[in-house]
Amino acid sequence: MALEVFHKDETLQMRRKLIGQSCRLFFSHDPVKIVRARGQYLYDENGMQYLDCISNVQHVGHCHPSITQAAAAQMDLLNSNTRFLHDNIVLYADRLAATLPKKLCVFYFVNSGSEANDLALRLARQYTQHQDVIVLDHAYHGHLTTLIDISPYKFRKLEGQKEWVHVAPLPDTYHGIYREDHPDPGQAYADTVKSLIEEAHKKGHKISSFFAESLPSVGGQIIFPNGYCKRVAEYVHEAGGVYVADEIQTGFGRVGNHFWAFQLQGEDFCPDIVTMGKPIGNGHPIACVATTEEIAAAFTANGVEYFNTFGGNPVSCAIGLAVLDVIEKEDLRGNAVRVGGHLKQLLLQLQTKHSLIGDVRGVGLFIGMELVKDKASRKPASEEAAHLVRRLKKERIVISTDGPWDSVIKFKPPMCFSIEDAERVCICIDQILGELEDTHQKENCRS
Amino acid sequence: MALEVFHKDETLQMRRKLIGQSCRLFFSHDPVKIVRARGQYLYDENGMQYLDCISNVQHVGHCHPSITQAAAAQMDLLNSNTRFLHDNIVLYADRLAATLPKKLCVFYFVNSGSEANDLALRLARQYTQHQDVIVLDHAYHGHLTTLIDISPYKFRKLEGQKEWVHVAPLPDTYHGIYREDHPDPGQAYADTVKSLIEEAHKKGHKISSFFAESLPSVGGQIIFPNGYCKRVAEYVHEAGGVYVADEIQTGFGRVGNHFWAFQLQGEDFCPDIVTMGKPIGNGHPIACVATTEEIAAAFTANGVEYFNTFGGNPVSCAIGLAVLDVIEKEDLRGNAVRVGGHLKQLLLQLQTKHSLIGDVRGVGLFIGMELVKDKASRKPASEEAAHLVRRLKKERIVISTDGPWDSVIKFKPPMCFSIEDAERVCICIDQILGELEDTHQKENCRS
Repeated sequence: MALEVFHKDETLQMRRKLIGQSCRLFFSHDPVKIVRARGQYLYDENGMQYLDCISNVQHVGHCHPSITQAAAAQMDLLNSNTRFLHDNIVLYADRLAATLPKKLCVFYFVNSGSEANDLALRLARQYTQHQDVIVLDHAYHGHLTTLIDISPYKFRKLEGQKEWVHVAPLPDTYHGIYREDHPDPGQAYADTVKSLIEEAHKKGHKISSFFAESLPSVGGQIIFPNGYCKRVAEYVHEAGGVYVADEIQTGFGRVGNHFWAFQLQGEDFCPDIVTMGKPIGNGHPIACVATTEEIAAAFTANGVEYFNTFGGNPVSCAIGLAVLDVIEKEDLRGNAVRVGGHLKQLLLQLQTKHSLIGDVRGVGLFIGMELVKDKASRKPASEEAAHLVRRLKKERIVISTDGPWDSVIKFKPPMCFSIEDAERVCICIDQILGELEDTHQKENCRS
Repeated sequence: MALEVFHKDETLQMRRKLIGQSCRLFFSHDPVKIVRARGQYLYDENGMQYLDCISNVQHVGHCHPSITQAAAAQMDLLNSNTRFLHDNIVLYADRLAATLPKKLCVFYFVNSGSEANDLALRLARQYTQHQDVIVLDHAYHGHLTTLIDISPYKFRKLEGQKEWVHVAPLPDTYHGIYREDHPDPGQAYADTVKSLIEEAHKKGHKISSFFAESLPSVGGQIIFPNGYCKRVAEYVHEAGGVYVADEIQTGFGRVGNHFWAFQLQGEDFCPDIVTMGKPIGNGHPIACVATTEEIAAAFTANGVEYFNTFGGNPVSCAIGLAVLDVIEKEDLRGNAVRVGGHLKQLLLQLQTKHSLIGDVRGVGLFIGMELVKDKASRKPASEEAAHLVRRLKKERIVISTDGPWDSVIKFKPPMCFSIEDAERVCICIDQILGELEDTHQKENCRS
C-alpha cells in the first residue's frame, strides 16, 4: 500500500475543497500530514518521526498488531448485527462488567462517545421521567444536537442555553470560586449543585441527571476535589435524578491505579450511568453505555426497540476484547502510574524553576500543566501556551492545549508512553519556557 | 479463532442478563446464533446455512476478502483522526463526489446513519436559521434524541410530536390518500407538503428542512410517484428550507440503474443534503453527509469547530474506497438490475396466483411484497406476513417485514444475491402462501 497518493500541497488543496471547513486541522497554518504510526510515534510523508502526547484514542499504541489481528480475523468470519446471537458481545459485556461496581451490569453498545452520551440522556429521562440536566461549566459531551445543548463549551458560541439545562461551576480549585486553600472544596462545590437544583425546583423544573466527565478535559484537565461526586450524587438522587459519569476521555486505565476515573472518588461513590468511548477500540468506532438493572428495565418498559445498526457487532466487540487484553498483558495501567508519575514530578520540578508554570495537576497519563502570566494573579498565559505548542512541533513533539483560555498544556498520550519520552518532552519544555521568560524579561527591561 | 465460546443457551442467558432488553433479537422466541457468513449466506453454530435476504449493510457480501484486506492493511499503517492531513479522506470524498450531482461537493464523515442525520439537521438549521422539520408519516431517521423527534415511527410510541415537527402523508399509492388510479399522485402528495408549510407559516413557524428517505423503508418499501420530490423541493425552497435525502438504506447502487435512489426522480431533482450510512462500509461504522458549498459555508461561518473523533479516519475511508471498488469490479449494480428484476417478475407472477399478495413494488434489490386479507379491501395481512417469515426461517431463509402494519415482506439482500437465490425464495413463498390459503379456505368452509 502506497503511503502517499498525492503531494502534501495537493492533499491540502483537495481537503479544503472537499471536506467541510468546520472540520479543523491541527496547526492550521502549517498542517502535518501523517502517513504511518506505531506505538507513541507518528511519521510524516518524509519519514520524520513525531512524539505523540495527545492521541488518547490510540490507547494501547498506534497500530498495535494484536488489535489489527483481532479485527482482521473477525472481519473474515462474521460482521453481523445484534439481532442475531453472538458470543463476542456477551463476552465483552462480561469483561467490562468485571471492571465496574456490581451495580453497573447492563450494557448498550454504540459507535461513538456522542452516541453513548445521547443514549445516556434518553435512559436518564425515561427512568426519571424528568427532563432537565445539570452540567459543569466549560463541559463538552459531544457533537450531536442534544449534546451541544448540554455542552457549555459549545452552546455559549452557538444558540445559547436551553431552559432545561443548568450549569454548575467547574470544581476547579486553581481558578474556580473555591480554591486549594478552602477547607472542604468538595463539599462547597457540591453545594453549588444543590443550589442549582433548588432554583430549578422553584421554577417547576425537574432534574433527570447530572452529567460530568470524571476528569473534565476540555475544561482544562481538572481533578475533582475529594468528596465532590459522592455529595453531588446524593443531592441529585434526592431530586429524583441520576448521576452520569462521562468516562469517554478518562476510562480504560488512563488514571493508572483505577480502571475508571470516577473510582478516584472512593468506593462509596458509584454513578448510575457510565459512558465510554475514545480509547475503547483503539481507534475503531465503538462506544458503550453501562447502567443499572433498574434504569435498563425502565428503558425496556417503554416498549420501543433500541436498534443500533453497527453497535455491538462481532468485529467491534472483538476489537474491544483485544484492547482489554493488551491493557492487561502489557501492564499499561502500571505504565501509566510509573510514567505518568515521573512526568508529573518532572513538570513539578519545572514549575519551581519557571514563573510561567502556574499549576501542574493530573493522575496517571492524564496531566495538565497550566501556564500563567504570573503566579499571583493566575492570569492565563494563552499566547505563551500557543507558542509552546508551536515550538514543540518544531521539536517534533505533538501536543495541544485545553481549558477555557487554552492555557493548559494537556498530556494524554498512548498508554505505552515511556520514561524516555517524558524526559524528552520536559527537556524541550524547560528550554522553550526559558527562552520565553528571557524574552519577557528583556521586554520588561525595555518598557 | 473459535467459532463458538459458549453453548447457544448460555449465550442467550448472558445476553438477557448483560445487554439492554430494548436491543431485540430476530425471532425472539427462538433466536438464531450466527457464527460465520460469506456472501449472501449465514451459518449457525451447527454449520447450517441460511440465505440472507435482508442484510443491506453487508452490501458487497458478508466478509468480502477485499474489504477485510483493505481494513487490515490500513489498520497496520495508520488510524489517526481528521486533524492531520491524510490522502484517504480526500480520495474517498472525491470518489463519492463523482457519483453525485456537481452541486453536492462538500463532505462530512461520521460513524453512523444516525450521526449523519443529526448533522444534516444541524446543517439545515444553521443554513436556513429556521427550526422546523417536515417528515413523512411512519418515517424512521435514527435512534438519537433529535432523530426520534423527527421519526413518527418512534415518537408516536413515545413522547409524541414536538411542535417543531410536521408530518406529511406518506406518498404510498397502494394504501395512501391518493392511489395508483389518481392522474398525478406525485403532484397531489407534494401539495400535502405545501399545505403543511402554509399551516406552519400561519402559526409563525419556519421550515428548516424536509427530511425523507428516497425510498421509505420502515414505511413499507415505498416508491415515490413521479415528480413528487421535485415539487416538494420547490415548495420547501420557497419556504426557505432545504431538502434532505436520507439515502442510508437506499444508496450505493441498491436500486441498480442509479447510484442513489433520489436519482429515480429524474435529473431535474437534486437534494440539498444527502445522508449515507449502512452499506457504505459493508458493516464497518462509517457514514457521511454530502452537501452544497453554500450550506457548508454557513456551517463554517458560525465559527465553531465540528470534530468527530472517529469520523473520516484513514481506516474507515480505506474501507469506504474498497466498497466502491467492489461495487464496480463485480458489477453489483448490474446484478441488482438483473437479479432484482427477475425477483420482482417472479413475485408478480406469484401475485396473479395468490390472493394474499396485494402488491409487489420495488426497484433493483429493494423490493417489497405486501400481504393483504383480500385484494379489494387491501386490509393488511400482518399475521400471515409474520407466519411467512417464521416458515421461511424453517426453510433457512432469513427475511423480515416492514410497513405500518408489518405486512410488507422486504427484500434488501447483499448485492451479490443470485438468480438461483431469488428462485429458491419464490418457490418457498409459493408453497407457504399456498398452504396458508388452503387453511384459510378450510376455515371459511367450516365457518
